[in-house]
Amino acid sequence: MNKHLDIAILGAGTAGLNALGQVRRHSKNFLLIDGAAEDKLGTTCARVGCMPSKAMIHIAEQFHARRKFKKLGIEGGDELSIDSAAVMERVQDVRDILVDRVLSNTIDKMGEKFLNEFAHFADHHTLQLGDQTVGFDHCIIATGSRPVVPEAWQSLGDQILTTDSFFEQEDLPASMAVIGLGVIGLELGQALSQLGVNVTGVDTLTTIAGLKDPEINRCAIDLIQKEFPLILGQTAQLEKAGDLIRVTAGDHRFTVERVLVSIGRRSNIDRVGLENLGIQLDDHGLPAYDIHTMALKEAPHIFLAGDVNVDTPILHEASYEGKIAGHNAGTGSLSKFKRYVPLHITFSEPNICQVGQSLDQLDESRIVIGTFSMGPHGRALVMSNNRGLIHLYADKEQGTLLGACMVAPRAEHLAHLIAWCLEQNLGLSDMLRFPFYHPVFEEALQGAIRDALGKTTLVHAIPAELTPL
Amino acid sequence: MNKHLDIAILGAGTAGLNALGQVRRHSKNFLLIDGAAEDKLGTTCARVGCMPSKAMIHIAEQFHARRKFKKLGIEGGDELSIDSAAVMERVQDVRDILVDRVLSNTIDKMGEKFLNEFAHFADHHTLQLGDQTVGFDHCIIATGSRPVVPEAWQSLGDQILTTDSFFEQEDLPASMAVIGLGVIGLELGQALSQLGVNVTGVDTLTTIAGLKDPEINRCAIDLIQKEFPLILGQTAQLEKAGDLIRVTAGDHRFTVERVLVSIGRRSNIDRVGLENLGIQLDDHGLPAYDIHTMALKEAPHIFLAGDVNVDTPILHEASYEGKIAGHNAGTGSLSKFKRYVPLHITFSEPNICQVGQSLDQLDESRIVIGTFSMGPHGRALVMSNNRGLIHLYADKEQGTLLGACMVAPRAEHLAHLIAWCLEQNLGLSDMLRFPFYHPVFEEALQGAIRDALGKTTLVHAIPAELTPL
Repeated sequence: MNKHLDIAILGAGTAGLNALGQVRRHSKNFLLIDGAAEDKLGTTCARVGCMPSKAMIHIAEQFHARRKFKKLGIEGGDELSIDSAAVMERVQDVRDILVDRVLSNTIDKMGEKFLNEFAHFADHHTLQLGDQTVGFDHCIIATGSRPVVPEAWQSLGDQILTTDSFFEQEDLPASMAVIGLGVIGLELGQALSQLGVNVTGVDTLTTIAGLKDPEINRCAIDLIQKEFPLILGQTAQLEKAGDLIRVTAGDHRFTVERVLVSIGRRSNIDRVGLENLGIQLDDHGLPAYDIHTMALKEAPHIFLAGDVNVDTPILHEASYEGKIAGHNAGTGSLSKFKRYVPLHITFSEPNICQVGQSLDQLDESRIVIGTFSMGPHGRALVMSNNRGLIHLYADKEQGTLLGACMVAPRAEHLAHLIAWCLEQNLGLSDMLRFPFYHPVFEEALQGAIRDALGKTTLVHAIPAELTPL
Repeated sequence: MNKHLDIAILGAGTAGLNALGQVRRHSKNFLLIDGAAEDKLGTTCARVGCMPSKAMIHIAEQFHARRKFKKLGIEGGDELSIDSAAVMERVQDVRDILVDRVLSNTIDKMGEKFLNEFAHFADHHTLQLGDQTVGFDHCIIATGSRPVVPEAWQSLGDQILTTDSFFEQEDLPASMAVIGLGVIGLELGQALSQLGVNVTGVDTLTTIAGLKDPEINRCAIDLIQKEFPLILGQTAQLEKAGDLIRVTAGDHRFTVERVLVSIGRRSNIDRVGLENLGIQLDDHGLPAYDIHTMALKEAPHIFLAGDVNVDTPILHEASYEGKIAGHNAGTGSLSKFKRYVPLHITFSEPNICQVGQSLDQLDESRIVIGTFSMGPHGRALVMSNNRGLIHLYADKEQGTLLGACMVAPRAEHLAHLIAWCLEQNLGLSDMLRFPFYHPVFEEALQGAIRDALGKTTLVHAIPAELTPL
């Protein structure tokens, strides 16, 4: 054995880099290890996730806005067009800036503390790294995930895209099927449609964006379908049809130039040799772990952080998990940390958000649902963006806020207010006593709170919106 | 005397209508009284304030966005143009929808409970309403305010505009001076400039938007001045110059087609005959009142709510004051209510916000200033909108949040998060433990919190962003 480390961090993504930040406070004897090719390094977020998708969404929204120009007194909107190579170049430029920033602040500065190798567990305290073996006291597995593509589709060639390949495209196709309407499929499907691509969305589920509230789901589907068709509750079959791909989904049958497969991601846990540890693995190859310490239950000197554990694969959670794992590995402790209130945002237009408990987790006989429809909302109206619906869930007797589900413009911001109130176990009356400026989107939340409060059994001697001194 | 009322409400604006909502819970013997001509009824907000200005800002932002189209891969942006009559028509249409909604939900339904008359106090319990006198137990004065135009400029004719006349214009002028760069002057000045009007801003102050933080003020001026020139620290003189108006401000001398005067608003208190009550009035004609009960100190059966009292003339405050006054008048009590944490938003691009205590109210030796510059912010970068600066003020030893000053995109939303935290006396560490999604503008706030926390004398045994279970 050449070397023995205090801590080995596998994976230089968001979770691994956040772990690194904590590890460094406690040890100098660590390695950050990632086997990705040089042009694949950088976080999933910056290279193939959050950032390039938001860059494309921004362009799409700017172009899409032209449809309302005439009504606003702006002439010439019909003459606008898309240079699809320039769009992809812009997306790639922005991505490169953000990837370079990640790398230059981390790996590029690390010298020998970073090792560009794939790591494999040889035993509970030994990693195989290429042809060398390295011992370790603690190890953080943060090797992320990869897009799922069904076996049968892998032979169809480079017309089948995932987020790994999508952002490398040099132009936009004339037509595209988006298979899987979770966050990624919806965000990119809508953006492509707004950019003029003939998009069709397909999902085996009858819900989109993981929505658990049927009314919000219905509203979201109605709004998205105004822009491009969704085939829901049908499983897609793909086959070659000359230069095109034929999609069959229930009674629907159509051909497209390319297909974006966004049916989920699977953990890269299968690539680290966990089977050599002799611990129990589930059907997905994942070991049991504690979400409050991030340690494996059967091997608590090894931690699992970020998308590799498949639980809540969202950046702010990956970052938090990395910090927990890094802190515990660095200090050699198993401190338990509270996890965030659930917070999910789909950056479609309107935004789709779920915060706190979802409707399927609640006993509907014990809650009230505060409702606000965006139609009459002043600010949204003047911005020609007054479509959407907000549902707030609260305890019927206590008025405690429990969760929210929304499809509404700027709901990403309302979701933060709601999440922060949930973190503090606030009640509807508490929230109603906070200031809401005018005219702001937050007043839509105020409307939903008022509606919810009116449905509780709470009785207010003085008006709920006034705070006695 | 024809009639004796429990409660008379003078003014059917935001404060008066909110008072009405409370009064109705306790009495049927009230009148809502407003002497405005039929085409001037409706709130200041809906008719000449928040709403038409936001409608114009929205159009201006949509048109202004074309300057970045080329970079994004959108062709034809240079060919877009403004139909200025259509712009004004759109603004007026939106305004009419919102005014009609206010009226149809209130006055239109009130029958004899609404009286279209100017009211004048005859004595402590009597109002003169046209040729009838009406007695009252309690009275709420909510008669609002009007734009100030210096005497010398009133003779210059209809080229001198205020918000009262501005939104009635049928087209946009080629050139305009905006005198007074508070919220209204900045919002409309920037919108007009973005719509192609040759705008020059003038203010006697060297600050804009009422900013009290010199660095944020500097940053805001730099950003606004990229769009149109600001002449600061100079008093404007106006005179006729043929068909134009000549503006002289210090060494600057130029002519414009029209002038928007936005140097402030004065209370309409001078029009209700308060001098007949024999109570002490200040230099502005205002009686002393308690901001927690809204009652006059020398005549506590009379209340002063909304812009008429000149203190914090902002809709959400006017609304709250109306509710307090209505509750106290309705119940015949003088209950004291807590007032909101200060919250000020200028809907310029980027937004300018002041929340909580301002820098001039704080002892700089006892605070830290957390800073975040928008330049490297990921989401702002992909949206080509990464200009701005955030300052957070917090107690140096305790880390308690004290206030914030910002010029940043989407800061209107961050301002709500900050205000709600201030309402609860939260500390920087509390805020840092709440979830921040990715990639969102809220992460700019997170950056400022981190920076502020690092400058406090607080020592963290465990990472500040982790919450022990």
